[in-house]
Amino acid sequence: MKNVVSAVCVKCGAEHEADPNVTTCKKCGGMLDIKYDYSYIKSRISREKLAERRENTMWRYMEFLPVAGESKVNKLRVGWTPFYEVPRLAEQLGIGKLYIKDDGINPTASLKDRASAMAVVKAEEAGVDTIACSSTGNAASSLAGNAAAAGFTTYIFVPERAPKGKVAQLMMFGANVISVKGSYEETFELSAQAIERWGWYNRNAAINPFLMEGKKTVALEIAEQMNWEMPDYIAISVGDGCTIGGLWKGLKDLYAAGFIDRLPQIISVQAEGCCPLNHAIQEGKDWEPMEENTLADSIAVGVPRNPDKALNAIRESRGIPVNVSDQEILEAMKLLGSVGVFAEPAGATGAAGVKKAVEGGLIPKDASVVSVVTGSGLKDVANAMKAAGNPIIIEPEMKLLLDVFRGKGLQ
Amino acid sequence: MKNVVSAVCVKCGAEHEADPNVTTCKKCGGMLDIKYDYSYIKSRISREKLAERRENTMWRYMEFLPVAGESKVNKLRVGWTPFYEVPRLAEQLGIGKLYIKDDGINPTASLKDRASAMAVVKAEEAGVDTIACSSTGNAASSLAGNAAAAGFTTYIFVPERAPKGKVAQLMMFGANVISVKGSYEETFELSAQAIERWGWYNRNAAINPFLMEGKKTVALEIAEQMNWEMPDYIAISVGDGCTIGGLWKGLKDLYAAGFIDRLPQIISVQAEGCCPLNHAIQEGKDWEPMEENTLADSIAVGVPRNPDKALNAIRESRGIPVNVSDQEILEAMKLLGSVGVFAEPAGATGAAGVKKAVEGGLIPKDASVVSVVTGSGLKDVANAMKAAGNPIIIEPEMKLLLDVFRGKGLQ
Repeated sequence: MKNVVSAVCVKCGAEHEADPNVTTCKKCGGMLDIKYDYSYIKSRISREKLAERRENTMWRYMEFLPVAGESKVNKLRVGWTPFYEVPRLAEQLGIGKLYIKDDGINPTASLKDRASAMAVVKAEEAGVDTIACSSTGNAASSLAGNAAAAGFTTYIFVPERAPKGKVAQLMMFGANVISVKGSYEETFELSAQAIERWGWYNRNAAINPFLMEGKKTVALEIAEQMNWEMPDYIAISVGDGCTIGGLWKGLKDLYAAGFIDRLPQIISVQAEGCCPLNHAIQEGKDWEPMEENTLADSIAVGVPRNPDKALNAIRESRGIPVNVSDQEILEAMKLLGSVGVFAEPAGATGAAGVKKAVEGGLIPKDASVVSVVTGSGLKDVANAMKAAGNPIIIEPEMKLLLDVFRGKGLQ
Repeated sequence: MKNVVSAVCVKCGAEHEADPNVTTCKKCGGMLDIKYDYSYIKSRISREKLAERRENTMWRYMEFLPVAGESKVNKLRVGWTPFYEVPRLAEQLGIGKLYIKDDGINPTASLKDRASAMAVVKAEEAGVDTIACSSTGNAASSLAGNAAAAGFTTYIFVPERAPKGKVAQLMMFGANVISVKGSYEETFELSAQAIERWGWYNRNAAINPFLMEGKKTVALEIAEQMNWEMPDYIAISVGDGCTIGGLWKGLKDLYAAGFIDRLPQIISVQAEGCCPLNHAIQEGKDWEPMEENTLADSIAVGVPRNPDKALNAIRESRGIPVNVSDQEILEAMKLLGSVGVFAEPAGATGAAGVKKAVEGGLIPKDASVVSVVTGSGLKDVANAMKAAGNPIIIEPEMKLLLDVFRGKGLQ
């Protein structure tokens, strides 16, 4: 990896060799960040060379990724997801320009595929054939799917309360699913012991610094899809902090390598019922654990596992923290639906934040904003039903249809 | 549309002008097929020119599509879906080469997006702003999503028994959903009257000949993704007959324009409990209605609405009809999952047919086969749960985990 210098601790600055098994800082336990040689990157790739590439996946940005040249990538087709300008929605929200980056259109239907695809490649480099994690959500299904495609064995630990539908998805991908009769804490603990005991590769975005490097590709794609003209703001939902951290890392890497000439401000959107990171920013103090009161399960994280990188991302970007209610999230799902994008609640949370930020005067009315949709609405049809409202119900008679339409002012 | 000659009846051969509102044959009521000027197409596009295109959607094949040059296309990013070679699965099934075309990775997660995207463009050409259909499945959700993205109004008629989750998805996209207290027949009838009354554009693949032209792009992509070296067989699930008809039309168009030099045989896969078209081929007689006894709801069509084109596709390609049980469909879902592809039951039916065709000696062991996955497993998590099996359930104790693993021969 000639493009990679080291893995630097975000807390104490200690540098470590970026070998595939590196996890957290050996000195202080802090999270590590992959450090690149930007001159080397610049000498190998340019905007123009990128434009010629036909590799329409996250791996089109190889020079920006911590992957050995000979590693086999591309098992499932992850990344290079759709990017839409949505002028109708911009007008409705009263904002200059609005764009949607739809990361629900990934192989397992969430942004997490970017991290899991990276985990598979790094596991291969580490020379192991088994990957493990504990999670019930998008991280688990994306690990199971991406590992299956690459022929890896997976062990996925879930607490007993995990929804059966999600467990079914894991089982379909051939994962060994261990349902633990206990809390999430106990589940995590058991998985940690098993990972230690058997030397499995650890797919945990808050421990493994490479996974954020996978996630950062969403920022690289946004930049290229906008023809390197950056927006004023990028809005994203925030749970344990790894995704916003990855987004910001991608933007900083592009800036350092001279691919973009300004950095957008990040709109960090959390649920009102669970916003420990935004709360820390708003109050100007350390973050504190919060209860997990939101229907947006993918960001219901009361004890974020990656607070440092997330808080850095908000502070360094002069970011805007916005907290939204569940009702506002459901309404944002309908807003996105009205332009053909079906998002899960956490996927629509970014858009809910944009709406609230405009209405509250937190961002100017002529701003340009990208809103990232982090997961597909098909992941959570139950909440879609809450947002959707009711159909017109009638007997099969044309006369009745005419009456109903007249009453509703339709046609 | 300089590339289009006419719309020809597949029954009596009568030719009609291919205007956007054309439906069925004015002489005999038969289905129409869009007829092209292949010399014109050849003069405008070649394999080499295609290779240079950066348009990674179904619209990269404009010269093969019945769309006026000035029409605005590309609202949602439909098509150019992933294509995977799956050597592990090929080995497991005992077949030469196996490829998966995953059309679940479309904006609304099914192949139907190809037809709906075309419907939106043709509605625009027809100068109307409203599109209607009656359906509870993938056609409805894809119409709702694609129309929403393009700013069209939709009216979608569903029978009262339609699953609430599916209705919710339609409502999310802002469709006007009319839930009819009656049978599917009555629902369809009411929608036909309303379409007639208000002059809405009709998105019904068995009436509107353009929709199949959208669907055919799956064949164009397979050919290009295989570098124009066609496989021996393409397997696809068959319900009302429009999709297999579209697949075959695409292959024939490519052959006529000199883009491929041989035509694959089509493996037509239906559910044992509902296989009127395959039955007609197997018995060598006319098709007859059947009951709809299968869990693969997207192909549970006892009275196929496009029998002629489907039967032509099987006969002309010297196709292989294969009927599979629900159990075989569920097993095929697991097979696809084992390589990272999550399919709905109808989406896995093609793969179930491949397995059965090899095992039964209907196709040679060294054959190359493409299996088309027509829809995502996230559309039907309930059936995924039937296929998935059960996880390992234990108390949070490392000792217990060791015991269980030892018992199962894991690790």
